[in-house]
Amino acid sequence: MIAAGEALLRRASALVDEAMRARLDERLWPGAPSRLMDAMRYSLFAGGKRFRPALVIGGCEAVGGTAEAALPAACAVEMIHTYSLIHDDLPAMDNDDLRRGRPTLHRAFDEATAILAGDTLLTIAFDALADCGNLDMVRELARAAGPTGMAGGQVLDIEAENSPPNLNGLIRLHRMKTGALIRVSVRMGALAGGASPETLTALTRYGEALGLAFQITDDILDVTGDPEKMGKAAGRDAARQKTTYPSLLGLEESRRRAEQSARDAVDALAGLNGDAADALRSLAWYVVRRDA
Amino acid sequence: MIAAGEALLRRASALVDEAMRARLDERLWPGAPSRLMDAMRYSLFAGGKRFRPALVIGGCEAVGGTAEAALPAACAVEMIHTYSLIHDDLPAMDNDDLRRGRPTLHRAFDEATAILAGDTLLTIAFDALADCGNLDMVRELARAAGPTGMAGGQVLDIEAENSPPNLNGLIRLHRMKTGALIRVSVRMGALAGGASPETLTALTRYGEALGLAFQITDDILDVTGDPEKMGKAAGRDAARQKTTYPSLLGLEESRRRAEQSARDAVDALAGLNGDAADALRSLAWYVVRRDA
Repeated sequence: MIAAGEALLRRASALVDEAMRARLDERLWPGAPSRLMDAMRYSLFAGGKRFRPALVIGGCEAVGGTAEAALPAACAVEMIHTYSLIHDDLPAMDNDDLRRGRPTLHRAFDEATAILAGDTLLTIAFDALADCGNLDMVRELARAAGPTGMAGGQVLDIEAENSPPNLNGLIRLHRMKTGALIRVSVRMGALAGGASPETLTALTRYGEALGLAFQITDDILDVTGDPEKMGKAAGRDAARQKTTYPSLLGLEESRRRAEQSARDAVDALAGLNGDAADALRSLAWYVVRRDA
Repeated sequence: MIAAGEALLRRASALVDEAMRARLDERLWPGAPSRLMDAMRYSLFAGGKRFRPALVIGGCEAVGGTAEAALPAACAVEMIHTYSLIHDDLPAMDNDDLRRGRPTLHRAFDEATAILAGDTLLTIAFDALADCGNLDMVRELARAAGPTGMAGGQVLDIEAENSPPNLNGLIRLHRMKTGALIRVSVRMGALAGGASPETLTALTRYGEALGLAFQITDDILDVTGDPEKMGKAAGRDAARQKTTYPSLLGLEESRRRAEQSARDAVDALAGLNGDAADALRSLAWYVVRRDA
């Protein structure tokens, strides 16, 4: 059931890695400090699953577009995701030493370089996106990453340490911090593929349900996951007394909700046929069945 | 000689302040954390001179466009300038406590909020720019702020603390760190106003010469300026043993070069007539005659 989703992830990884390597080629940035370019590459090519690029590419293909048409947006969204990880790991934020089994960027380089590498990845994401030829996508990505999206959610996450949210607060936090970028990934793919308004609406619902399934599963894996496979310690949320789905609902109800969200995602695509839509459906099941 | 330039600055300030206040209105960002919005406003409305917005508006008017057509780009460039000041002030970078006579953002709020407010300003700059209706401007602004522009220049600036640059190195550093954003401000104005390729080239030369005049004068003011007027201590570059134009060339030769750069900027506009071009010429003299 999850094979087609895993195949999409592998294909998206290969495509987006090649495209990002080309975009980070120093011949395109004459005079750029090598240290900055090295720092961006260190974090960009650290073994990420390329989940968001897979959604951009899958979303584009599901509406009849090509992977190629989706690639600039796929690169942009992965660059923004990577910048957010770099900045979240900083001493002033989560103060993490490890990410995907390797030293975090500010540990491997230094804090100033990590701040600037994050800033620069966010900046060149929009250079990449400009190749998509669509100002609506520029606006959508900026909003998904901005005050009502990812960055706003990160502020809520920091505030939550001092005043733990209830379930509605937690849902709001995650809808902004991780949900907005997942949702916009699918939407940008659909826009790049020339989706009709109806199909765009369906794929948006898919992206929203998928984002919720993704985050609940992340919280569950922090309790039950294998640290080897995840490249980071388990139980970190509990150690920090973070409010999570399992801490509010227990593991069993959390698992039930994750499955329900995956089913909602699948149901949202009921009107879409073909292998590409099947791959998106499969990816929804992958999200809740993955072990890392 | 500088009155028309000062008038352009005052007019640009009023226009861009109003436009930025509207863009930061919380009704446009439902659910955004107030702390994040407050932090962005704290730094955006801290008494900046709006030099870069004046260049966008002046560049647009000099080619026959309206100030209104230039406003989204004027907001975008000021947001990016402000983000860069916030991040430059951070403990991991320049570790400054004061900016324009007030506590820096990480002092007034906290470090995590300052990092995120900077990130968010950079992000919503592209939301603003999307209203200009021109993907070339998105690409140009991203490149001016990226690895071969402002962010790359900031990395060089940090590296310069350990290995002081010679004059060519200093020119390269400033061309990236401050010159690129000044240059792109004029270019975005010209593009928003529908400049011909020849006029765009002339305005680009103006922007490049102006950026050099601006930076040399900044270095001079750090030696000779009145701390009251500048809202920050004088002599900070010397105290940090920073390489500057005066430290390499002396004050007199630095002044001569600043004047020459202002003259180069004025000469670049030889083919442009009208009040708007006069205002840009006047602004070049303002840049080297200002006392803060």
